[in-house]
Parts: sequence; C-alpha cells; structure tokens
Amino acid sequence: MKKKLAILGAGRIGQVHAKAIAGNETAELAAVFDPLHEAAQAVTERFGGKIADIDSIVNDSTIDAVILCTPTDMHADQIELFAQNGKAIFCEKPIDLDATRVRACLTIVQQTNATLMVGFNRRYDTHFMALKEAIANGQIGRPEMGVITSRDPAAPPADYIRRSGGIFRDMMIHDIDMAVFLMGDLPVSVMATGGVLTDPEIAQLDDYDSATAILKWADGRQVSISNSRRAVYGYDQRIEIHGSEGMVQAYNERPVNIETATAKGYQRAPLHDFFMTRYVGAYANEIDAFIHAISNGDSTIPSGRDGLNALLIADGALESAKTGKAVPLIFD
Amino acid sequence: MKKKLAILGAGRIGQVHAKAIAGNETAELAAVFDPLHEAAQAVTERFGGKIADIDSIVNDSTIDAVILCTPTDMHADQIELFAQNGKAIFCEKPIDLDATRVRACLTIVQQTNATLMVGFNRRYDTHFMALKEAIANGQIGRPEMGVITSRDPAAPPADYIRRSGGIFRDMMIHDIDMAVFLMGDLPVSVMATGGVLTDPEIAQLDDYDSATAILKWADGRQVSISNSRRAVYGYDQRIEIHGSEGMVQAYNERPVNIETATAKGYQRAPLHDFFMTRYVGAYANEIDAFIHAISNGDSTIPSGRDGLNALLIADGALESAKTGKAVPLIFD
Amino acid sequence: MKKKLAILGAGRIGQVHAKAIAGNETAELAAVFDPLHEAAQAVTERFGGKIADIDSIVNDSTIDAVILCTPTDMHADQIELFAQNGKAIFCEKPIDLDATRVRACLTIVQQTNATLMVGFNRRYDTHFMALKEAIANGQIGRPEMGVITSRDPAAPPADYIRRSGGIFRDMMIHDIDMAVFLMGDLPVSVMATGGVLTDPEIAQLDDYDSATAILKWADGRQVSISNSRRAVYGYDQRIEIHGSEGMVQAYNERPVNIETATAKGYQRAPLHDFFMTRYVGAYANEIDAFIHAISNGDSTIPSGRDGLNALLIADGALESAKTGKAVPLIFD
Amino acid sequence: MKKKLAILGAGRIGQVHAKAIAGNETAELAAVFDPLHEAAQAVTERFGGKIADIDSIVNDSTIDAVILCTPTDMHADQIELFAQNGKAIFCEKPIDLDATRVRACLTIVQQTNATLMVGFNRRYDTHFMALKEAIANGQIGRPEMGVITSRDPAAPPADYIRRSGGIFRDMMIHDIDMAVFLMGDLPVSVMATGGVLTDPEIAQLDDYDSATAILKWADGRQVSISNSRRAVYGYDQRIEIHGSEGMVQAYNERPVNIETATAKGYQRAPLHDFFMTRYVGAYANEIDAFIHAISNGDSTIPSGRDGLNALLIADGALESAKTGKAVPLIFD
Repeated sequence: MKKKLAILGAGRIGQVHAKAIAGNETAELAAVFDPLHEAAQAVTERFGGKIADIDSIVNDSTIDAVILCTPTDMHADQIELFAQNGKAIFCEKPIDLDATRVRACLTIVQQTNATLMVGFNRRYDTHFMALKEAIANGQIGRPEMGVITSRDPAAPPADYIRRSGGIFRDMMIHDIDMAVFLMGDLPVSVMATGGVLTDPEIAQLDDYDSATAILKWADGRQVSISNSRRAVYGYDQRIEIHGSEGMVQAYNERPVNIETATAKGYQRAPLHDFFMTRYVGAYANEIDAFIHAISNGDSTIPSGRDGLNALLIADGALESAKTGKAVPLIFD
Repeated sequence: MKKKLAILGAGRIGQVHAKAIAGNETAELAAVFDPLHEAAQAVTERFGGKIADIDSIVNDSTIDAVILCTPTDMHADQIELFAQNGKAIFCEKPIDLDATRVRACLTIVQQTNATLMVGFNRRYDTHFMALKEAIANGQIGRPEMGVITSRDPAAPPADYIRRSGGIFRDMMIHDIDMAVFLMGDLPVSVMATGGVLTDPEIAQLDDYDSATAILKWADGRQVSISNSRRAVYGYDQRIEIHGSEGMVQAYNERPVNIETATAKGYQRAPLHDFFMTRYVGAYANEIDAFIHAISNGDSTIPSGRDGLNALLIADGALESAKTGKAVPLIFD
Repeated sequence: MKKKLAILGAGRIGQVHAKAIAGNETAELAAVFDPLHEAAQAVTERFGGKIADIDSIVNDSTIDAVILCTPTDMHADQIELFAQNGKAIFCEKPIDLDATRVRACLTIVQQTNATLMVGFNRRYDTHFMALKEAIANGQIGRPEMGVITSRDPAAPPADYIRRSGGIFRDMMIHDIDMAVFLMGDLPVSVMATGGVLTDPEIAQLDDYDSATAILKWADGRQVSISNSRRAVYGYDQRIEIHGSEGMVQAYNERPVNIETATAKGYQRAPLHDFFMTRYVGAYANEIDAFIHAISNGDSTIPSGRDGLNALLIADGALESAKTGKAVPLIFD
Repeated sequence: MKKKLAILGAGRIGQVHAKAIAGNETAELAAVFDPLHEAAQAVTERFGGKIADIDSIVNDSTIDAVILCTPTDMHADQIELFAQNGKAIFCEKPIDLDATRVRACLTIVQQTNATLMVGFNRRYDTHFMALKEAIANGQIGRPEMGVITSRDPAAPPADYIRRSGGIFRDMMIHDIDMAVFLMGDLPVSVMATGGVLTDPEIAQLDDYDSATAILKWADGRQVSISNSRRAVYGYDQRIEIHGSEGMVQAYNERPVNIETATAKGYQRAPLHDFFMTRYVGAYANEIDAFIHAISNGDSTIPSGRDGLNALLIADGALESAKTGKAVPLIFD
C-alpha cells in the first residue's frame, strides 16, 4: 500500500517535495498545510491531497509521515509534535539554529522511537553519490585530504541572513555535512575565518559573506572548505577528496554540454544560477530515500544526529572565526 | 481541457511516451492498444487510460491524438487510418522504409489536412537544441561545415537488422536529419561508403556496420557523418558545426560529472550504454512539443516531409555506397 | 663526431630547422644557402655555419646532409643532385606537385641508395605520437574508423594558392599522411568533395577552401577528413581513431591551460593562430629524428615513398571532387 | 654585449639554469663552480664557460652575475659575499631557513645596492603567468578568494626533510608566494594545521606530510592552501582565484592532450611526475627574466624581500599548526 505523506509549508521547497512524492510510485500526497490557503491549494491541485490544518494531520491515522518545510523556528516543535504522534518525519535542515534546542528535540525523537530524516539534499546528488561510491569502492584508497569549493550566485536578502544563523550555519553547514559524509567519521577540531567582501550590510548583521574553514580529524586528515555568497558565473559546487591511492573530483554539473569557439576563444555557458535547479535531482532522490526508508523500516540518512553534528561543527567554525583559535569539537 | 492521447504499441518506446504524457499537465493518456494484453495493461496501470483496440480508438471522438509505436511496416497504414479519422498523429520514425509508400501516405495526410509529427527525437535533445540555438543566435555566423560522429554501443540482433532497412535508413538517418536541421536547408548530393568490421553476419545480410557519408549543399557547404555500430565505451553522440564566425560543438552527455585520478591516470566513466537512457529527456521533450503543437494548432516539427527528406538522403547514401558515385538528391 | 648539415633556403622554415640543428648535440649547422645574402647571414649569425652556394655544398665532402627548404619546384632537382653526390636529404613536403616527377626523382634516390626523408612534421607532434603509440600498444584494439578535423586560421594569399597545388595537395595531404600513418597501411579508394565558402577568388583559381574526403581500406575501414581554410578561433587540429576495443582522441594543443568564468560563462583562449607555433615541437623532433637516422643508418620516416603515396591519394581526392566518383588508388 | 654569468653548484638545478643561460642570446655562461670537479666539468663541456673556484669568480671583473645553486645553508653568506663584490645575484629559494639571518643578509644587499632575485620559479610558469595576467586585466574584478591545491608525487627522503625546514618552509612556501603574488599584497594573518598521513618517519622528524592553511588579508580576503607530499597520480598544481567579477583557474599542465576511451571508460595519462619536468619552462623563463633585469637595470621579481615575506608567512603557518591559533603577520 502506498505511503501517505503530508507536507507542512507549501512554499518553494514544499512544492519541490510535493512533486517528488507525486513522482514516487509507492507514495502519495495526502495532505498539505500552509497558513496561506492559496499556497496549499496550488499544491493540492497540481499534486493531489487535501488541504488540512496541523491538528487534522496529527490526528489522521492514515498519514504515515510528514515533510516539514515550515520556517526553521518551528521545526523542533513540530518534530516533537509529530514524533509524539507516531509520524515519521522528514525535516528541512536545520532542526534548529541552537544546538541545545536540537539536542532536546532529538531526545524526544529517541524516546518516541520516531523516524527522523534531515534534509541535507547534497548527499543525494548524483555526482556526489558517485564520488562517495568511488571512495567506498576503494578507488582512492583511504580518503585523507578534502577540498570543497562552494559558492552561491548571489547573497540572499538581508532579512534572510538575519534569520539564517549566518554563513556557517546556513551555507557552510552543507559542505561540513559533505565532509563528514565523505571522510566517513567526525572531525576533532575546526579552524575558520570569514570576511565581508560583497555587501557591507552583511557586516552590520554581524555575518560574513566569504568564509574558509579547515576541519581536522584525530589522525591528521584535513578538509578545507571555501565559501562565497557571490559568484557571478553561477552556483559553483565542487568537491574533491584525495586519498592514499588517488583522488576523486566532482566537477560542476552542466545542464548543457556544448562549447562554442569564436575569435574570442572557447565559451561554455555559466553554471546553474539557483540551488533548486542545480539540486532538482537531489531533492527528488532524498524524498525517494525517505519513502523507501519508512516503507522498509530502514534507518534514515542523514539522521537527526547527522544534523546536530553538522550544526556543532558550524558553531565551532563560527567560534573559531570570532576567536582566531582552533575549536575542539565534542559530539554527544 | 487536457488533450486525450492514445498509444498504439505498449513496448519499450510506448512506455517511454506514456510516461511523458503522464508528466505533461496539459494531456492525459486515454487509451492504450497492444496485441499483447499484458503489455497494454502494464502501461494503463502505471500511467492511466483504458485498454482499447484500434477500432475503438478510431471511433472515440474524445481522443485527440495517437502515438504510433507499432512495427514500422504498420506505420503508413495507421497514419492514413487516423488521418482519415481526424486524429493528430505522432509516428515513430520511419514512416516506411520505402519512399514511394511514404509519399503516398503523406498525400493522404495532406488531403485530410491531418497533423503528423515524426519521431526524430534528437531534435529535442537539450544539448542539440542548445547547439541549434547557438547557430540561430548567429554565434557561429553562417553554418558551413559539419562533423557528426555517431556510434552505437553494439550492433542490434541480426533479426532487427534484417527488418531495419540497413545502417543508412535505420541509424544514419538520425544524423542526416540533424544535418538538415542544423544546416537549415536540404543538401543537393550525397557520397557514402560502408564496411563490415564488427560482425561478418551483417555482410551476409547485405548491410554494413560502419559507414561514412558526405552531404553537400548547392553552395558548397558540407557535412560528414561517421557511424559505427560498435563502440565499446558507450553510445557516442557528437555534433559540431563550423561556421564563418566560429564553431559550436555538442559533446557527449555524461550523467555523472566526476573524474578519478590514480597511478594509472585520470578516469571518467564510459558513456551511456543505451539510446533510451541517453535520450530520455529528448523523448519527453518531443512528446511535450507534440502536445503543445496540437493544443495550439502549431505546425509539427519534424514533419512527415522531414521524415521523407531524411529517408531520401539515406536512400541516396546507400546508392552511393553501392555505386561509388555521388548521388544527386531530388526532393518532391 | 657531429653530423654536419647544410640548409638550402633560409626563410621561415629554414630558420626553424637551423634552430633545431643548433639544439641537437650530435649535429652542427655547417652551411647555409639562400639567394638572398642577408637571409643566409641572419641564420649563420644566430645558429653558426658559413654562407655557401649550392655547388660548394655539393662539393664539400665534410657535409653529411642537406635540409631543403627551397621552393617546391626546385625540390626534385635538388634531391637528385644531392643524392647523386652522396648527401643524405631532408626535403620539405612535397617533393613535387606532379606524381610522375616524384616517381622519377625517387628512382634516382633508389639508384644512388641515398637517404631521403620528407617533412610531414605532424608525425613528430607529441600529441599525435602519443596517439600512434596508444594504437601501437593495442589500447583501442584494431584501428577501424578515423575522423580527422583540420582547419587553418585563414586562407593563404591567392599567390600561394596558385602555386600550392590546391587544397588537397597542399593542406589535406597532411591529414592524408596521418590517416595512412595511424591506420597502418594504404587505402584502396577515396571519395571527396570541395566548396568555396570563404573567398570567391579561390574559386577563380579553380581551387576549394573547404573540403571533405573519405578514405577507404580494402577490408572496409574508413577515415573521414574535414578541412577548412578559415577557422576564426585558430588552428584546429584534431584526430580520433576508433577501434575494436576503444577510441583515442588527440585534442587541440593549448599552450596555456587556464579557464576564466564570468557572468558570460566559462572562457578559454583561442587556439594557436599559426602552424609554426602549433608544431614548433614537431619541427624540432623531425630534425632530431633525421639526424638520428643518418647517424645510425636507420631508415627515414616518412620516406620519399610516403610522400609519393600521400600525393597519389591527394590527387585521387581532387579527381573525385571533380568527377563525383570514388577513385581507386593504385600505388607503385 | 652579452652578460657573463657564473653558476655555483652544478647539481640538478644548476644544470637546468646552465641550459637556460646557453639558450639566452644575450648572456653566456662564463664560469662554473662545484666542489665536485666532474660535476662542474659536465656543465662546462655542455654549456660552455670555465671551471672556477669561488674566489676567482668573486675577483673576475668580467663576470656580471652569479646563480646560486648551492646548499641552502650557504646561500646567505654567498649572497653577502657577491653583493659586497658587485655581482648581481640569483639565489635559489630560500635565502635561509631562519628569518633573522635572512633579514641580516638583505640589509647587506640593501647597503651594497646589489641586485638580488629569489628563485620562486612558479611566478614564471606560463599557466600561472596567464592567470596573473587575467587578474591584472581585470577579467575577474577584484581578486577576493583563492584556492590553491599543491601535491607532490611522493615525499622526499627523510634526510632531505631533516634539512628542508619542514613542509611549510620547503613546500607550502611556493604556494604562499603565489598567493601573495596573485592577490597583490600581503596578508595579515595565517591559520594552519598539519598531519602525518603517508609515512610515520616524518612524524619522528617533527614534520608533517599533509598541511592546510588559510591566509587572510586585512579587508577580509582569504586564500586556502592544501598540500600533500603524496599524490599517486602525479605532481598536482592548481590555482584558482575568485573575484568580484569572475574566477580564473589554472588547471594542471598536461604534456600530451590525448584521451583514450575503452570499455572501462575514458582515460588520460597521469600528471607530470617531477617538479623539474613540470616547471621546465618556468625555470628557463625566470633566468631569462633575471638576465633581462640585470641588462636593463630593472628591479628583480621576486626580490629578496619577497623571499623574506614568504618565509615569514610560512613560519607563521608552522606556529599556527603548533599552537592552534591564528598567527598575526608582521612584515618589516
């Protein structure tokens, strides 16, 4: 029987997940909640399901799982609510910007034995999955050094930055999670620095738009991450892992593989200009993985614990940027 | 109101088109015919619509269009049947292996004022569309010389070759259509040659597995096409057009853009190993284009005439390979 | 003891060869002839040797070999002269534009047992040598199909074209020699066509500026060659050979391997804009190979026979372009 | 008149410089010193000049300049000696492993008004020069973030590491100099970490074989550097600079630009396996630049000051790796 899912939050990302559910043969969209009626309606008209409020979703025993696309500050409460009411939960990252709150939330999840998956979509990107598989297959020997380059096309609006938790918790956290995922275990310390190069308003918000970090593992392995909020040539997402027997690189995805040559030289198009087009496949894959996990009783990856770990490292990076000291990382 | 489509032939390609219809918001799959009941049923269960026989599709006034995925030798008759009964028709290439039969069929299409689109899917491949657009935008000036390299992973079974019309009509015809499409008008002559390099049985079938051709235009422009039925590294599909102001190349599509470096060097994965995975997007795009055309009353591209033209050039190439002479091309 | 070489013709290519001799530890430049005293002087001042006339070179028993960089119509006479006087000869291609004259000349070379090497420099290009080696190592199995794309930055002056023998004997002959070299033996027929796309004056000279040819081998193997006299993005030189076990491609040489990305996209510089910069290494390598051969008594590659064979194929291509028929190739 | 140069130290790098002098039309090799007579002799026989001791070079008023290829611990003394005797000096990096000693040496250089150039050869690599030029031309706007990846094929022998000053002063110092060169001014702090991943003996020498650093500029700009002593796929040297208007990347140099495709996928050869083959052009270019500078009275780049600055940053990186703190950088 098809798994029935409800979506909370019918905005941009909620629509993406609704489409993924509609495209999955083993699941269906049962209900959509959004405080904005029109937003919920647009999704149900296109992808099915009924419009519902949160209570009715909680109380609908036919609903197996919820997809939380609500504002970040509601995530932890909603996770707890649905965990306590027997629903499996997929939550967009982050669970909360405050690690203490995340810990409390994960305690409830554990006590209720609820299923929780966190939306680090990049783990489900085809290119990065292939990179992970190359490592897992032993093609590069033991993974030792990583270089992650991740740049956004343009900084988000000041209002978003104000609520985002800052570049480390909002942007670099994705790269941090990839570093942990690809290296296979948790680092022991982080050094980082940041600067404001694109927009002075970001400095006034006490944030950075450009940041670099080094994660270090107990045995001396290292991953460096370079972030910028502004890349005029598009959304730049590259990862390389260097190991004892070789290296593997994920280049940027290029939707169209053509090149033009004129008197000025050879030209290829800019990169994707938006994370949602770049990761459209990854979003669908992660929802498929969530549905597969709840259908088969498998553990969900990335887990709530993975989300907390990445947040703790991001917090450490921010602290390092503020203090100029390497910050030791302690995980629960 | 959604356009209602019927599919005739629920095999491999019929399923692909059914999925494309299901994914198109302005259309729905109304009926599926296949002499094998189970095949039709598998499609309707997954993508909707009812199982039907040909007569009932002909007579169902709510059905707007048919998608013909039947064996080639049925195409012309079915086109005529549906044209005479007011249905729009999408027909997998070729209309027929015999140009005379195609001409007769197109006459009926014209007399009945029917809409007919032929399935040269490559015109709807993202990469080749971008290449066409670069030419249309004037990026390379006037297109003058083309080099098309097209290789299959492996030769089809002898039984298929026996009915396919041979390498020129079955395989090179796609490249010929692309040459005409990209250069913008019809060539005046063709030279070609062929050889049997992969499997002696192909020689016994009086066919080739490797062929090269040169199309020439009235003003001296030229396109060369190199075909092989066997490329161990995958399905190789490249096009370049050289013009007065530059060149544009479509490289192979690579589903995963990673590269591994070891002591042996740098490695990338082989290419797609199957035309249906390589052109999965193109198949969906062409059905979308067909639905869009019948919804808006636009002309369908490629048309039946395009199909005939490509066949006439393929026939000329075969004649040239047999006679060792350039064959002048005459279009109706 | 160092081999003593004389250069006849101190123009552009003579200077290149003088530099190569100066850089070779086992040879020295002994004499330079040029009807223009200043030209000869410039070379001797920079690379050593004395200014000499042809007679004194012929009669100087200390001179081992001559490098002929004189006008084409002097080549055959000078080869015969030096062959009869015991000098080893390196001759820029072609020996002569007329195959009958070449045959007569090679007869003298054979009778005198002279050493003759012909300047098809591309056989000594690093990239193409690596491609040849990949084939020789069996990396692609048996070489079966070739695609050669060769475009000049701009057409030479009309005066040059008038004396060059035309696009097939002047330009495509290089690609023809590479096809023979890489496939490993001689083809049995050639089909070709040509057009005038860049400059109407070329038509008045009864030549083409754009040409395509198909060489065919007795067992069905095929190589296609696409030539243009005008590529605004530079000197485009690519070869690919497809075989039973794989394919090998030589991409263009790029002197600087950088790429810039801006809002307009990714940009690389145009290609080399001149054959002498593109093949600077090949020119040095071929002179080194000549010196090595005469020092060790090895046979010279490419030989006079290789030069004749390529000319016969070029002649066949021209005939095919004129007659529209495949031309069978007969080698002595 | 040609500049007369003496080389001190006829080892591997001395031979490279001797060849560069021999190939420069405006200079000649006048003298060679090496404690090993045979080593000096081998160089003079091949590239000219006489064998000499240091005193006679000091006292030979016809000698314009010296090239110091002696062991590092002799550099500072020899620079002072030749500075006081009116010779221009090219010194292989580093001047000394101890910054205090370097400062004292540079004071002498300044007092004697001597010309001193330090051998950071990468500034003269064609690819990196093109990258620098792209920045200088404004192609990427203001350079803001850098990512430098630099890996050796294999760790040097323990004995070398013992005298090298460690990975930061020996290896990363090159990347540090490139960062300063490309960003255009000096950073204000450095964070770094290191690990031992390839050979435990390196840990016993109190060194690292893998290191990462972040340089930071006063205005917030950042460059990250990732180093490994062991890359099985060759000598990996890549630089990218990201700016306000774009990014420029220098990819690895590939001596042969061919790619093979087989059933296993696409293969390119490993990278250069040795820094001297990778940077053969850069070595010649830097000697040419030195000769040009002393011939024209231009300032030498990189200067002794550039050498000191890079050393101070490397020292800071080492301190940061030991203390876990960002180290502020103070330049004289």
